[in-house]
Amino acid sequence: MTAGPAASADRSLLAADLRERVQTVLTRFLSEQSAVLETIGTDLEPVTDALREFLLDGGKRLRPTFAYWGYRGAGGQDGDSILRAAASLELLHACALIHDDVMDGSDTRRGHPAVHRRFAVLHDKQAWEGSSDTFGESAAILLGDLCLVWAEQMLTTSGLPETALVRARGVYDEMRVELMSGQYLDLLEQARGGHDMARALRVARYKSAKYTIERPLHVGAALAGDDPEVRTVYSDYGLPLGEAFQLRDDVLGVFGDPEVTGKPAGDDLREGKRTALIAMALDHADPAQAAVVREHLGDPELERGGVEALRTVISDTGALDKVEALIEQRTQQALGALDVAARRGTIAAEAAEVLQDLAVAATTRRV
Amino acid sequence: MTAGPAASADRSLLAADLRERVQTVLTRFLSEQSAVLETIGTDLEPVTDALREFLLDGGKRLRPTFAYWGYRGAGGQDGDSILRAAASLELLHACALIHDDVMDGSDTRRGHPAVHRRFAVLHDKQAWEGSSDTFGESAAILLGDLCLVWAEQMLTTSGLPETALVRARGVYDEMRVELMSGQYLDLLEQARGGHDMARALRVARYKSAKYTIERPLHVGAALAGDDPEVRTVYSDYGLPLGEAFQLRDDVLGVFGDPEVTGKPAGDDLREGKRTALIAMALDHADPAQAAVVREHLGDPELERGGVEALRTVISDTGALDKVEALIEQRTQQALGALDVAARRGTIAAEAAEVLQDLAVAATTRRV
Repeated sequence: MTAGPAASADRSLLAADLRERVQTVLTRFLSEQSAVLETIGTDLEPVTDALREFLLDGGKRLRPTFAYWGYRGAGGQDGDSILRAAASLELLHACALIHDDVMDGSDTRRGHPAVHRRFAVLHDKQAWEGSSDTFGESAAILLGDLCLVWAEQMLTTSGLPETALVRARGVYDEMRVELMSGQYLDLLEQARGGHDMARALRVARYKSAKYTIERPLHVGAALAGDDPEVRTVYSDYGLPLGEAFQLRDDVLGVFGDPEVTGKPAGDDLREGKRTALIAMALDHADPAQAAVVREHLGDPELERGGVEALRTVISDTGALDKVEALIEQRTQQALGALDVAARRGTIAAEAAEVLQDLAVAATTRRV
Repeated sequence: MTAGPAASADRSLLAADLRERVQTVLTRFLSEQSAVLETIGTDLEPVTDALREFLLDGGKRLRPTFAYWGYRGAGGQDGDSILRAAASLELLHACALIHDDVMDGSDTRRGHPAVHRRFAVLHDKQAWEGSSDTFGESAAILLGDLCLVWAEQMLTTSGLPETALVRARGVYDEMRVELMSGQYLDLLEQARGGHDMARALRVARYKSAKYTIERPLHVGAALAGDDPEVRTVYSDYGLPLGEAFQLRDDVLGVFGDPEVTGKPAGDDLREGKRTALIAMALDHADPAQAAVVREHLGDPELERGGVEALRTVISDTGALDKVEALIEQRTQQALGALDVAARRGTIAAEAAEVLQDLAVAATTRRV
C-alpha cells in the first residue's frame, strides 16, 4: 500500500484517464439520445443542448470513479461496458443537481447558469407568454426527470451481461431511494431550523456517504460479482469517507474560494443550510455568538459582512477545528479499512491503491 | 365482436375487478416501501402518507388496464406478476401528475389538495422556517422522483421472468422518454401561445396517445412475447384512440362538470392550455371572437363570466362539433383495427372484447 512518487503520478494519470473516458461515453450517449429526441421534434434541441452543456462541462465524476474502481476492486476487468455503466451515475447525479437547483433557487452551477435559469433566459429572449421563471423551473423539472430515466437506460444498455445487471438492480434501487430520501430529510432540516448534530449527520450519511461513495462502490461490486466480504469492505471504507467528504463540503460551503468552487462566497450560509458544521458552532456558541447566527444564517440578502461575521463565529467556537479533526479521523478510518482489505487480498491491489488516493483527494479538495 | 347485454355486464365487472386488484398490489407495494423508508427515518412518514393517499384514492387506472390487457391480448396468462408489473405504470403516472401540478401551480388533484399543497400546509402547521410554498414544491419534486424510481422497481420486482423484463425494457424506456418530451412540448406550446393545430396534435400524440394507450399496450405485449403483428395492431388501435382520448380531455377541461371531474370549471382555460380544441376555435374565429379568446384565455383570475364567454366562442365557431366528430372518427378507426385483428386471431378474443369496451369508455367518459 505504500507507493513512491512515480507510482503516485501514474495513479493520478489513471484518474485523469478515467475522467476522459467517462466524458467520451457520456458524449456518445447524449448524441444517441439527441437523435432520438430529434425524431420527436426539432424543438427539443434546447433540451439536449442544455444537458450536453451541463453534463460535459466539468464535474468531478466521483460517482462513476467509485463505481468503476468498485468493479475493478471486486475483480472486474476494464472495458467499455463498465465505463458506460459507471458513467450512467453521472446522469443520476445530474437529475439530483438540476432538481436541487430548482428547490434551492440557486442561479449558478459550476460557474454557469443553472438549468432553470437557462430556460428562463430562453423564454425571455423569445418573448414567450407567461412567466419566464415558471417556464425555466418547469423545464428543469422535466430535464431532471429525463436524466433519471436516461441514467437507468444507460446502465441497462451498457453491454454488461444480464446476470450482472440483475445482481446490481437491488442496490441501484436502494441508492436511488436513499438519494431522494436524503434530499427530503435535508429539506426538512432546513425547515426545522434546529441544530441537531445527529440529524445533520444523518442527512450527510444519506446524501453523501451512501449516495456518493458507498453505493457507487456497491453497484460496481455487484456488477462484478457477489462477494459479501467486498461489500463489507466498501461500507467500512465508504461510509466514514463519505462523511468526511460531506464535512469537507460543509467547510467549503462556508470558507470556499469562489474562484475555485464556482459558487458565490458563503452560499450555504445564505441558503441557511443546517450542516454539521453549523450544528457544531451552535452547540458551542455563547449567547452573543448565537445571536449572530440567528441574525445572518439563511438571509437571502446576506452580504460580505454577514458572511465574515458567521465565519468568525464558526472559527471562534472551535467548530471549524473540530470538523477538520473529524474529517481527518474519518479519513484515517476509511484508509485503515482499505489497508486491511488490501493486505488480505479482499480487494484487488491496483484498485486499493487508487481508492487510497481518492480518499485523500476527496477530503483535501478545494472544490 | 358483438356482445349482448349479459356479456357486457360481465366485462364491466372484469374492469372493476382489475381496478380492485391494481389497488391491492399498489397498497402492498407502498407498505413494503414505507417499511424501507422507516429504516431511514420515522420523519419520512409524511412522504409515504402523501403517496398512499395520492395513489390509492381514485384514478381511472387506465395505463395499468391497457398494459394488462395488452399482455392478455398477446397471449399472456393472468397472474399476480403481470398485475404488479401493470400497476407499476400508476407510479410512473403519479410522477407525471405530481410534477405537473407543481409546474401548473394546480392546487387540487382528484378533488384533494395537490401534493405540493399538502406539504405547504404541513410546513405552515409546524410553523417551520422559510417559505411554505417553496417547501411544498420541493417536497413534491422529490416525491415525484421517488415515484419514478419506484415505478421501475415495482416493474422489475414484479416476479415476471427476466426474459420478459428484458424484452419490455426498450419500449418502457421509450415510453418514459416520450412522456417527458411530450410534457416539455406541452410547456413550449403554452409559452409560444400560438394556435398551431399540427403542433397541438403532436403534443396530444406524445402526452396521451402514446403514453396513455399505445405504449402501455406495447409494454404488456413485450412482457408476453415478441410478436411484431400484435405490436402493429396495438399501434393501429392505440394511436387514434389515444388521440380521441386526449380530445375528450380537452373538451372536459372546458365543458366538464366540476362535480364530476373534481377540478374547477374551465380549469384548462384559466391555465391557458393550447389544446387542439382551442387551436380549432381560433382557426375559425372572426375578429370579435378572437378578441374574446385573447382577453380571457390564460387569465389566472378567470371567473364564471369569462369561462362562459370562451365556451360560447368554442361552440359558435363550430370547434366543439368538429372536435366531437373527430373523437367519433378516431374511435371508430381504433375499433375497426381491433375488429380486424380479433377476426384474424392476432389478438386473444377476451382481450379484444375488453379493449373494445375500453375504447368506448375512454372516449365517452365525463371525468
